[in-house]
Amino acid sequence: MLSWIDGRPEELLSIKDRGLAYGDGLFETIAVTAGRPVLLERHLSRMAQGCARLNIALDQSLLRNELQAFCAALGNGIAKLIITRGDGLRGYAPPVAAQSRRILQGSPAASYAPENAREGVRLFACKTRLAEQPLLAGMKHLNRLEQVLARAEWDDPAYAEGLMCDVGGRVIEGVYSNIFMVRDGRLSTPDLSRCGVAGVMRAELLDQAAQLSIPCSVTDISPDELRSADEVFVCNSVYGVWPVLELLDCRWLAGPMTRRLQAIARDLLDS
Amino acid sequence: MLSWIDGRPEELLSIKDRGLAYGDGLFETIAVTAGRPVLLERHLSRMAQGCARLNIALDQSLLRNELQAFCAALGNGIAKLIITRGDGLRGYAPPVAAQSRRILQGSPAASYAPENAREGVRLFACKTRLAEQPLLAGMKHLNRLEQVLARAEWDDPAYAEGLMCDVGGRVIEGVYSNIFMVRDGRLSTPDLSRCGVAGVMRAELLDQAAQLSIPCSVTDISPDELRSADEVFVCNSVYGVWPVLELLDCRWLAGPMTRRLQAIARDLLDS
Repeated sequence: MLSWIDGRPEELLSIKDRGLAYGDGLFETIAVTAGRPVLLERHLSRMAQGCARLNIALDQSLLRNELQAFCAALGNGIAKLIITRGDGLRGYAPPVAAQSRRILQGSPAASYAPENAREGVRLFACKTRLAEQPLLAGMKHLNRLEQVLARAEWDDPAYAEGLMCDVGGRVIEGVYSNIFMVRDGRLSTPDLSRCGVAGVMRAELLDQAAQLSIPCSVTDISPDELRSADEVFVCNSVYGVWPVLELLDCRWLAGPMTRRLQAIARDLLDS
Repeated sequence: MLSWIDGRPEELLSIKDRGLAYGDGLFETIAVTAGRPVLLERHLSRMAQGCARLNIALDQSLLRNELQAFCAALGNGIAKLIITRGDGLRGYAPPVAAQSRRILQGSPAASYAPENAREGVRLFACKTRLAEQPLLAGMKHLNRLEQVLARAEWDDPAYAEGLMCDVGGRVIEGVYSNIFMVRDGRLSTPDLSRCGVAGVMRAELLDQAAQLSIPCSVTDISPDELRSADEVFVCNSVYGVWPVLELLDCRWLAGPMTRRLQAIARDLLDS
């Protein structure tokens, strides 16, 4: 598949890269439809915010142009963008003259079972807890061992996703998705100021809900509150929205709010 | 400088490597004296334990032979060993047939100021806190953004190291060292079961202290307890032991216990 480093076709990376050494960088996973990166502005904006928080210098307009050219060349599929702080010497201190590196990898469109979107999914209850680290919370950085451990907890394909809680037991997110619940017509999704990845589809759905005057809150959610939900769904920028039908002994139905937001996500991904 | 991947001279890595994608791997930083890796058994054993915890398959005897050959070729300096889970497809799930990858990088001997060991160092008080994650605690894994953020907090060369506490305020470690305190002839070092890297020099000094019948404990240490210490020192497998003279308004002297353990570390590194 297509892969570029700093704008040039390349599949090999310097072993001095701090992305490898320390996970010192960030990534975006971007759906590409007919040569167009879906939710491009949100992906660019989240990357810019992450780079600002980690103090990684990044040429935004260069990245935008490169990403658009890459997606045009890819056509349909998924573009994974990694930004690292670039090469380093030994030691944690960021080099004074660090040159950030742009890595783009293409892959075919995701091959999720169509039933996931049509009927809904079962969630595996992951035992791996997310540590609380406000300095890193929300970012899609390259330190993802918690997700690796969580995803390794199950291999039964009956579970399309896993639910992760934080060390305090609060509901936070899926392993590769964000989660929403609906109760009495009100949408809510976990607060991600202590841990978790603030997904671009989550941000898009929150904005769309606000525009549609759907009452909406970003707040701590306990397992009991999730249990009491009328509807639950997970979302990400590749598959859109999946209704959640089952988690442990909880059962939910794919309800009208889920279907409404799912249609919005599908329109974004298809058009 | 010398660098090998899977036993062959190589400076470039596949961008599909999960070490880059997720920090899905571990590392060791090994002092090399006259072609010999110092504390080799401890480094190999910590790497084996980390791989077992992350479920990364690793051929121990192949690694041992390769590391010895690499250090023989390097002569004097520092060998950095990275083990990753190897290449992956998109997604967190570890590939069923993952082939772990062995990356070795050589660098010249560290150029720390000789005063650090001779007189002692000042510690910077890092604001970056270590999150509590028992599943990852103790391991020298590749998810090191906390250390990157902490090390970026100061650039005044008057501080040779920084002190990191956990989110609960307990004293845990230096950014690239472990820390010990001495009080009334008793040695103690922080418990690392919630966070922190269990260094090989720390393990070596704990064992040596036990052999010398020095009373020793691995326990939670509060800033107040550190303040009340008679001696404080930091250690790692590259520089050995540095007395700590100063942290915020605390002052300590380079005392006899520190000097005794420093001599032991120096013998290991020099011989």
